[in-house]
Amino acid sequence: MPASSAWFTLRWAGRAVEMLDQRRLPSEESYLRLESVEEVARAIESLAVRGAPAIGCAAALGVAQAAVTSDASGVAELRADLDAAIARLARTRPTAVNLFWALERMREVIATAASQPGASAEAVRERVVTAACSLVDEDVRICRELGREGAALVPDRARILTHCNAGALATAGYGTALGVVRAAVEAGRSVSVLADETRPFLQGARLTAWELQRDGIPVTVITDNMAGHLMAREEIDLVIVGADRIAANGDTANKIGTYGVAVLAREHGIPFYVAAPLSTIDLATPTGAQIPIEERGRSEVAQIGDRVLVPEDVPVRHPAFDVTPARLVTAIVTEAGVARTPFGQSLAALVDRQRIGST
Amino acid sequence: MPASSAWFTLRWAGRAVEMLDQRRLPSEESYLRLESVEEVARAIESLAVRGAPAIGCAAALGVAQAAVTSDASGVAELRADLDAAIARLARTRPTAVNLFWALERMREVIATAASQPGASAEAVRERVVTAACSLVDEDVRICRELGREGAALVPDRARILTHCNAGALATAGYGTALGVVRAAVEAGRSVSVLADETRPFLQGARLTAWELQRDGIPVTVITDNMAGHLMAREEIDLVIVGADRIAANGDTANKIGTYGVAVLAREHGIPFYVAAPLSTIDLATPTGAQIPIEERGRSEVAQIGDRVLVPEDVPVRHPAFDVTPARLVTAIVTEAGVARTPFGQSLAALVDRQRIGST
Repeated sequence: MPASSAWFTLRWAGRAVEMLDQRRLPSEESYLRLESVEEVARAIESLAVRGAPAIGCAAALGVAQAAVTSDASGVAELRADLDAAIARLARTRPTAVNLFWALERMREVIATAASQPGASAEAVRERVVTAACSLVDEDVRICRELGREGAALVPDRARILTHCNAGALATAGYGTALGVVRAAVEAGRSVSVLADETRPFLQGARLTAWELQRDGIPVTVITDNMAGHLMAREEIDLVIVGADRIAANGDTANKIGTYGVAVLAREHGIPFYVAAPLSTIDLATPTGAQIPIEERGRSEVAQIGDRVLVPEDVPVRHPAFDVTPARLVTAIVTEAGVARTPFGQSLAALVDRQRIGST
Repeated sequence: MPASSAWFTLRWAGRAVEMLDQRRLPSEESYLRLESVEEVARAIESLAVRGAPAIGCAAALGVAQAAVTSDASGVAELRADLDAAIARLARTRPTAVNLFWALERMREVIATAASQPGASAEAVRERVVTAACSLVDEDVRICRELGREGAALVPDRARILTHCNAGALATAGYGTALGVVRAAVEAGRSVSVLADETRPFLQGARLTAWELQRDGIPVTVITDNMAGHLMAREEIDLVIVGADRIAANGDTANKIGTYGVAVLAREHGIPFYVAAPLSTIDLATPTGAQIPIEERGRSEVAQIGDRVLVPEDVPVRHPAFDVTPARLVTAIVTEAGVARTPFGQSLAALVDRQRIGST
């Protein structure tokens, strides 16, 4: 496992998937070595890895893992194993569209490889592994491009509020919202970040704080309910968050609590930016009302470690995401450029431009 | 110590102050026996007891404790000890005005008793203890009256959001915001409560849930950042919270996060009620801008029990309260009636009416 100075979110390690176990941060930097698709699926479900782009990358690597562990000798047999792996991975989490996008990419790669003249199981295996690794590499490149696109939105001395973790830990590296922050710093701007702790899973307190501290970017943690107070005191200049799925009209599903931050930002005249790769934009979903919102279990809300926070038998709610309506979003930053209202047109144009660029 | 069915927030126990140690809820119902004013002051500072009215009651009992533990034989000597006790208690927490109100009441009682012809230290001691016990009893009576005044605001089948704990645990009994809920239930209405967990100290998850469960009132806990999502889904009918200090213009200081809830309630057209005794109204403070906001330490935000939530050396912010501007408050419920906008007039009228009533 790497020295602490060279941490990584996830990677292909020959015949296994390695990933930082984010459940153990910030107390412990330990890595999982996952040797079956089931192990990868459970790592996604249990939030060892999370963040929409990282979930997509993990799922692609999970398909690669299925390819190398399958003992199929024929192409048809291998495809059946890979289809089962894709179906298993698709059941892990419903909201982040990047999961389904990555699995669809892998499905296309498999279909193309399998339809080559004289295709062999070994050749398909190799294509699948290569494609998964490319998708991971591409994710870092996209984050860097996205960061450069967004950096212009960040003035010098900006005090930036973010929610959850849309950083290197939520992607294959560099980050989306935190990619914009990093790019602003690389462009010579002095910035500071306020990180909402982001209950219940505390991605802000545990993850955003951890990775920004590693990079030497000033970060201060607040509880989620302090954002309004600090906005009222004019201590926040802009908000930037990631996204799990952006509908065609710009409605944005992101970690629970994002919507409240957006309402507060509007109340105080503070810009509210969303940073996400084009793979997060789901033109097939017209509005936020059609985005499925994952409901998770009681224990993440009711206890922290062994500490019981809620009396036994008192129920909790646990929607893991909410939807911020497009009218509260100032701009959406992607690797292909910055979309502004009306998002119905601007998002479609960015996606189209990418399609043309990639043909 | 009492059986669990007969719990209490705090009481005078002859020669000591007894109080439920709220830091240990919901896991453990244990009571502190405090035998010096310093112990009472530390219980207030460390949040063993909290909630504006309960802090006032605890402070009054702290003065009684100082009276019985003082070995002064003369009136002047006893007064010096009591003045020192009042000064110590006044340094515990800055925001809740009930603390200063209760200490002022005790100061007046001491002055009156000491100026009686033939006053003795023993007679002053007795008056102080009696006055402190009266103040505690009166708090429960006020909460019941306040509850009846507010119950009319709660329709049948109301789904009520509350923040922090403004219940029996925040008062000598019955509660302010939760007093309104209890009175609505006693009036035959079926209601359910959503309790914001209320980071960092989790008064909603630990205390509001605990006391409502004890009373058989349906309660569900949410993290603070879920309120907006549930309002957007039309799952909340009204908000009711307590207050730590209400300025003359109606601006209301309450537990951090209250302001964000108020902004969200306004965004969704949901009534936002404040429930507080007249002793919380501070006509000497013109607006919320003059209310001192307590800043507490790092550890309550950065860890829960032994569990570290924030990386070492990453700073946190910890304002314990925020100010909700009067324009976001639908009505303020007191034991003397319900005040509505313009609060500058309606609050002054309620306070005046009480002064006339008590003369």
